[in-house]
Amino acid sequence: MTRKQLVDAILKKKSYLLVGLDTDINKIPPHLLSYPDPVFEFNRQIIQATEKYCIGYKINTAFYEAGGIKGWSALEKTFEIIPSTHFKIADAKRADIGHTSSQYAKAFFEHFRADAITVSPYMGEDSIRPFLEFENKWTIVLGLTSNPGAKDFEMLRIDQDYLFEKILKTTSAWGSPDNLMFVIGATQAAMIRGIRKITPKHFYLVPGVGAQGGNLQEISESALLEDVGLLINVSRSIIYASDGEDFAARAGNAAHFYQQEMRVELARKVPSGLE
Amino acid sequence: MTRKQLVDAILKKKSYLLVGLDTDINKIPPHLLSYPDPVFEFNRQIIQATEKYCIGYKINTAFYEAGGIKGWSALEKTFEIIPSTHFKIADAKRADIGHTSSQYAKAFFEHFRADAITVSPYMGEDSIRPFLEFENKWTIVLGLTSNPGAKDFEMLRIDQDYLFEKILKTTSAWGSPDNLMFVIGATQAAMIRGIRKITPKHFYLVPGVGAQGGNLQEISESALLEDVGLLINVSRSIIYASDGEDFAARAGNAAHFYQQEMRVELARKVPSGLE
Repeated sequence: MTRKQLVDAILKKKSYLLVGLDTDINKIPPHLLSYPDPVFEFNRQIIQATEKYCIGYKINTAFYEAGGIKGWSALEKTFEIIPSTHFKIADAKRADIGHTSSQYAKAFFEHFRADAITVSPYMGEDSIRPFLEFENKWTIVLGLTSNPGAKDFEMLRIDQDYLFEKILKTTSAWGSPDNLMFVIGATQAAMIRGIRKITPKHFYLVPGVGAQGGNLQEISESALLEDVGLLINVSRSIIYASDGEDFAARAGNAAHFYQQEMRVELARKVPSGLE
Repeated sequence: MTRKQLVDAILKKKSYLLVGLDTDINKIPPHLLSYPDPVFEFNRQIIQATEKYCIGYKINTAFYEAGGIKGWSALEKTFEIIPSTHFKIADAKRADIGHTSSQYAKAFFEHFRADAITVSPYMGEDSIRPFLEFENKWTIVLGLTSNPGAKDFEMLRIDQDYLFEKILKTTSAWGSPDNLMFVIGATQAAMIRGIRKITPKHFYLVPGVGAQGGNLQEISESALLEDVGLLINVSRSIIYASDGEDFAARAGNAAHFYQQEMRVELARKVPSGLE
C-alpha cells in the first residue's frame, strides 16, 4: 500500500484506527472454544464487526506463536481474510543480521502479504535494510515504546539526544516517509511535540491507547499532519470489550467510538481532506 | 538445563560448539528436495552427523518462518528430535511489552521446550523479565552483535561506556550468571577482554565464527573462564560444508574440526576439568 492509498483510506473513512488482534485463547469468550479454531473464529467476527470503523489491523505475532502450529495457522488465515482495502501490520518486532532479516522480510511481506512489519533497531542498518527493499511495503521502527521499560535504554542521554531520538534521526536516512514509520508510545504523549520536530513527515504507529492509558485527543493534537501521519492502535479495549456472546457487537461499538473521536480530530486538522 | 549441567556437558565432550541450524531451503542439497519435508530431513541428518561433536543447537527462527506453516512444522519437529542431552537455543531475537513477552516465553520455553532464547534489549526491563521467570531456562540478551550495523547504535558512546556495555551492566542486575547470557559477536574479538571485565561470570553466546570471519582461538583465549563461560556457534561453515550427497558427513567433519580446536583451548584453560 502506498502512502497516498493509506491517506486516502483514512480520509474516506475518517478514521486512523487500527484494531490490534492480540488474540489470547485464554481471554476469548468461552462459547467460541467449541469452534475448530477458536482464535481464528474470534478474529473473523472481530474483523467483520470492526472493518467499517478502522483502516487496518495490527496482528501481534507473539499470541499466535504461543499456540504452536495451530496458532501459526490461525495467523495465516487471519491475514488472508482481512479485506485488501485494509492496512495489515505484522507486529513482530523482528530484526537480525542482514541475511536473516531478509528471511523475516520474506516471511511477513511475501508469505503473509503484510503491508508493514515492526522492527527493532538495536542491530543497526544491515538489520533494517532488507525490509526497506520491498516495494510498497512499510518498515515500522521502534522509536519510543509505551511500556515502563522505555526508560531503561530508549531514554538514555547521548549528547543532546535521547537514544530513541538518535535512532529516529539515523534510521530516517535509510528510508523515506513513504516506506518508513516509527512506533511512538501513546503513554508518552507529552513528548510527541518534540518528536514531531525531528521527524516532521513520518507516519507514527501509536499503540497504548485504551488499556495502557494513552490519551487519543492529546496524541492526535500533537502528532496529526496535514496528510494525517498517524495511526492509532487499540487492542484490548476493543477486542475484549465483552467476553459474552455479544463480544463482536461490543467490539464494533468500541471501534465506532474511537472512529468518532478521530473524525473530530481529523475535521480540526485536515478539514479540506474530508468529504 | 542448569549451569552445572551445561558445564558438565562441555567438559565431558571437550566442546563448547553449537551448530547453527539456519536451514535455507534454497541452499540444501538438491537430492533432499524429493523428501516430504526437505528442511526437516536436512536437519535430521545434520544433527545425527554432528551431535557427537557439539553440545547444542542454535535454531534461527527466521529461516523457518519464511516457509509458512510448513516451515513452522519443520521447526517444531527439529526441536523434538534434538537429543535431551543437548542445549537448545531458539535464536528468535524477540521481546515486546511485558504481557506480550510472556507469550513469546510461553511459545519457546513451553511449546518448543527450548533451553534458551535470544532477546533484544531495546524495550527494557519489563520486556526481558518474563523470560527470566522460567526455571532452568536461559535468556540470552543481545550485547555486541557480529554484523556491520553493530556500530550504528550498539557502539554509541554514553558517558564512558558504549551503549552495549551499559546494557550488559543494567541487564546483569535483572538475572544472574545462572539464567542470563549475552550475545557477543565473534567479529569483535579485540573487544572481548574489555567485555569480560564488565561481565566476569556470564556465559557468552558467540556467533560469527566461520563464514562471518571470527577467530575461534582469539575469542577462546579472551573469553574462556575456569567454568568455561563460552558457547561458540558455527552455522554456514558446518551445515553447508558440501551441497552434495555427502553433506552430512562433511558437516560432521567440520564439526569435528571445531571440536578438536576447542579441546585444545579447554586443555589450556581448564586442565583440571578435563578427564
